[in-house]
Amino acid sequence: MVYEDLVIRNNTKLVLLVADGLGGLPHPEFEGKTELEYAHTPNLDRLAARSALGLHLPLSPGLSPGSGPAHLALFGYDPFELRLGRGVLEALGLDAPLEPGDVALRGNFVRLDADGKVEDRRAGRISDEEARPLLLRLKNELPRVDDVELIWIPGKEHRFALILRGPDVSEDVTDTDPQKEGEPPLEARPTSPRGEKTARVLQTVMEKAREVLAGEKANGVVFRGAATLPSIPSFEERWGLKAMGLAYYPMYRGLAKLVGMTVPHLENFEEAIEKLQQAWESFDFFFVHYKEPDKKGEDGDFAGKVKAIETLDAHLPRILELNPTVLVITGDHATPALYHAHSWHPVPVLLHGPFSGQDGVEAFHEKVCRQGSLGMVGAPALLPLMLANAGRLKRYGA
Amino acid sequence: MVYEDLVIRNNTKLVLLVADGLGGLPHPEFEGKTELEYAHTPNLDRLAARSALGLHLPLSPGLSPGSGPAHLALFGYDPFELRLGRGVLEALGLDAPLEPGDVALRGNFVRLDADGKVEDRRAGRISDEEARPLLLRLKNELPRVDDVELIWIPGKEHRFALILRGPDVSEDVTDTDPQKEGEPPLEARPTSPRGEKTARVLQTVMEKAREVLAGEKANGVVFRGAATLPSIPSFEERWGLKAMGLAYYPMYRGLAKLVGMTVPHLENFEEAIEKLQQAWESFDFFFVHYKEPDKKGEDGDFAGKVKAIETLDAHLPRILELNPTVLVITGDHATPALYHAHSWHPVPVLLHGPFSGQDGVEAFHEKVCRQGSLGMVGAPALLPLMLANAGRLKRYGA
Repeated sequence: MVYEDLVIRNNTKLVLLVADGLGGLPHPEFEGKTELEYAHTPNLDRLAARSALGLHLPLSPGLSPGSGPAHLALFGYDPFELRLGRGVLEALGLDAPLEPGDVALRGNFVRLDADGKVEDRRAGRISDEEARPLLLRLKNELPRVDDVELIWIPGKEHRFALILRGPDVSEDVTDTDPQKEGEPPLEARPTSPRGEKTARVLQTVMEKAREVLAGEKANGVVFRGAATLPSIPSFEERWGLKAMGLAYYPMYRGLAKLVGMTVPHLENFEEAIEKLQQAWESFDFFFVHYKEPDKKGEDGDFAGKVKAIETLDAHLPRILELNPTVLVITGDHATPALYHAHSWHPVPVLLHGPFSGQDGVEAFHEKVCRQGSLGMVGAPALLPLMLANAGRLKRYGA
Repeated sequence: MVYEDLVIRNNTKLVLLVADGLGGLPHPEFEGKTELEYAHTPNLDRLAARSALGLHLPLSPGLSPGSGPAHLALFGYDPFELRLGRGVLEALGLDAPLEPGDVALRGNFVRLDADGKVEDRRAGRISDEEARPLLLRLKNELPRVDDVELIWIPGKEHRFALILRGPDVSEDVTDTDPQKEGEPPLEARPTSPRGEKTARVLQTVMEKAREVLAGEKANGVVFRGAATLPSIPSFEERWGLKAMGLAYYPMYRGLAKLVGMTVPHLENFEEAIEKLQQAWESFDFFFVHYKEPDKKGEDGDFAGKVKAIETLDAHLPRILELNPTVLVITGDHATPALYHAHSWHPVPVLLHGPFSGQDGVEAFHEKVCRQGSLGMVGAPALLPLMLANAGRLKRYGA
């Protein structure tokens, strides 16, 4: 990585505001406009007139990203190099205190019949309220196997995460979830010699859990997606930025923690903005996450996504009054209401900084961004561009 | 490299005109225009109407290039693969006759006290006039150490370059410049077994130089930045082009020599154009360098940079009357007057050739280039585009 050798520190303040799922598609029922284009966004428009516009490609053409790789790319990491396993994402999503070396697994409560076969993969559609006390019992009665600590993290309904922490734990084990009913849980088997200990631990966990849960609606557990936290240079090591992550959904808090940001607990976007104001003097870089556009996009709710964008616009002056040196406003990916899901389309970017120039357009949406001076760049290019605008990158070569 | 296998030769003439630091930023005091946009450039505009326009990215997003990597990229080389060490750049900048295998070092005259400690790192701010005779004495009295030839190159004030030429010289030696006063020069130490001989040679040079310079204002020398010329396929080997480099600043002459261009001595841009006309029949490719826009940009002199661009425009007809098959006009990087330095912003490109097409815009500046048919490309893409337009690249695959 050339960039790392060129990073310098100074007193500038950088803000990366990620409106999740911001990008959209023209909708025939809304004047052929995209959500961002249809929304009334006077603050964004005024800022756009003083900013550089462009588009970013989250991963590569045609690839619809999950939240993990999309955010890693925005944080300036190579999302193809740093692959986050399913278990890690699940654990991050549940706000688990993952540490390097931990093995995370996705766990399910199941209902087993008298022969030990899976009768119901969701343990009779067990509710959160029913599952919590069962998880607490596992936590109390199964705190460890030999020298491996077990960390049980509650999830939604029949889902939970299990973290294995201890010497020689490994992700090299097979799933024990048979993925269908009428069959017994599979045996945990090592996929390499490194996984032997972990396979034994998991078998023990499954057997003991049956004893602990005997007679309950959920009387067994199965696992899949064993994964370790990738070893990743922290945001501060890589970019020389003391960073705070302001997110109110566990997944994004987890991703910010993964790269070593300080991550306070927040309940909603309102609190994120308040915290931004309070912590302004103590950090160099703020990642601010706004979830709503993605949710409405996934629901196919064009009008709802428009409204979510307008709410963001209304909050913008409170960020601007802090006078950040560099402000980037973008999404992690597109979630067009027309598509009902994360999509592969390029995402609008606005970059405001002392040397961003301005494109002279008082509007911010997909179509004006296409003509913007930033052009279309890969998502990992945005962080170096922020650093450059803040005078935080030395010249390359003489 | 795919390209090299596809290169063919013919009788076409190619000109790469590099206006150093050409790219700029919109300036609020000049109608929100960039330098190139504000300048009155009737010749460039008319040519633009018959050309393909676009932008090039010198290195990668956010990276502000030095002249070395920026020019290597324009010459079609990978600027991250070919890293030019400090000593090589210094020597190139001083017009030194560097050859592959040579080790180049940056040298300083210093003033040593009676204990042999550095009393003044600039030898009492020695002038060029004072330093020249001292360097001449070193040159005469220290022409070699054993089988290693010493080539002494004068620089500005206390600076000079030293080239070591001979069997087994190596860049694997430490600096001897202590970088502060009150300490003796450091010992040259090998950083690998390959550097042992070179360390011994440097120690001998420092000791003998003290004898030669005894009693002078500058009575010692120190070294840093040992570097070898990277082994690099010549421009002719790579691109099949017999090339002339027309530059009147040492650094750019050095860079042209580095890739094997024929480089006549020139005093100014006027002479570069004259030489272009004289040598027209004898070469396939001409790199013409125009320094002034970068200088004015670094001074933050918007109006001066505008004027420099207008001067370039006035010279353009003399290039056009030669009727080059392909002409590219661009910069090596942006030097916005607003930024006072080399910057990371994309650089306008104009490509005129028999198959360049034309974008139908009678203007040449950042904003029209954004809409141009070339799009935004990496700087190393320009040379293959020139070859293609000149019919000098075979089809790839059947």
